[in-house]
Amino acid sequence: MILVMTGNGKGKTTAALGQAIRALGEGKKVLMVQFIKGPWISGEDKFISNLKSQKSKINFEIIKTGKGFVGILDDKLPIIEHKKVAVEGLKLASKEIKSKKWDLIILDEINNAVNLKLIKAADVLKIIKNLSEDTDIIMTGRDAPKSFIKIADIVTEMREIKHIYRKGALAKKGIEF
Amino acid sequence: MILVMTGNGKGKTTAALGQAIRALGEGKKVLMVQFIKGPWISGEDKFISNLKSQKSKINFEIIKTGKGFVGILDDKLPIIEHKKVAVEGLKLASKEIKSKKWDLIILDEINNAVNLKLIKAADVLKIIKNLSEDTDIIMTGRDAPKSFIKIADIVTEMREIKHIYRKGALAKKGIEF
Repeated sequence: MILVMTGNGKGKTTAALGQAIRALGEGKKVLMVQFIKGPWISGEDKFISNLKSQKSKINFEIIKTGKGFVGILDDKLPIIEHKKVAVEGLKLASKEIKSKKWDLIILDEINNAVNLKLIKAADVLKIIKNLSEDTDIIMTGRDAPKSFIKIADIVTEMREIKHIYRKGALAKKGIEF
Repeated sequence: MILVMTGNGKGKTTAALGQAIRALGEGKKVLMVQFIKGPWISGEDKFISNLKSQKSKINFEIIKTGKGFVGILDDKLPIIEHKKVAVEGLKLASKEIKSKKWDLIILDEINNAVNLKLIKAADVLKIIKNLSEDTDIIMTGRDAPKSFIKIADIVTEMREIKHIYRKGALAKKGIEF
């Protein structure tokens, strides 16, 4: 099953994390490959490492492949560098898909990576063709390419109706990241 | 902070679960009170009980207060019974909010409970007034009442763009529940 979570509203990555929880509850193995997102530690990373430090069996891995926001905020990295790591991220995702070791693979922010022209939609579709029947995949990020929507089983657009940012508040730990 | 996840698309409850993971990662305590949803065991329930059986410290509780779908599928329960348990669920949520023991409280499907006239929006707003400054709340479900959107900091509408149901497939364990 192929799921796409897109749109400008809050809830795309968290919905994917929620799917991860459901799959883990069923004893499944989950991998999240994060594109664009840089090396900073988010609540989901801490959650996994806390459980591992308690020696819990949790079949959930998050791999970050990005270098942070592209072309906005204080990003000074040449676009070629962002492209390089995104292409490497896609190679890694391809390898993991082929390994058939995961029941759910989340390609987080991959829609954005395509929109920012870091990687090509066609290359993503190519690696998805290798998905085994039993593996589900979730692709998140704003402005999902039409070709992703076409092949998906479930597509949700998260539309921002209201957001505290509009009122000038800062991101809150545990909510925004 | 008050978050509302509404709309007809997939991702409302899972986005709330994802927020739960982020909050838990930050060492916070999370309670999900589920309205409408019946006693069946979902992936998220299994996830929590698996971790607890491994003696993991996880500050995440899910309390189900509903009796299952209302007025659709094979629901034969008189509406008065659905109302009774929803009112009790709201009382329980009120008690938990007042206890100030949770950092994040998710009122799952509460929007639907209001729309189905099981409980009143005004009564929900009343209990939310008791929220401490440090507690976040997420209200999920289709057709969020306007009064909820008005008081919320973040509102996302999950719009269904495409869903495999449309093609007649069955719900898949670990994805839909």
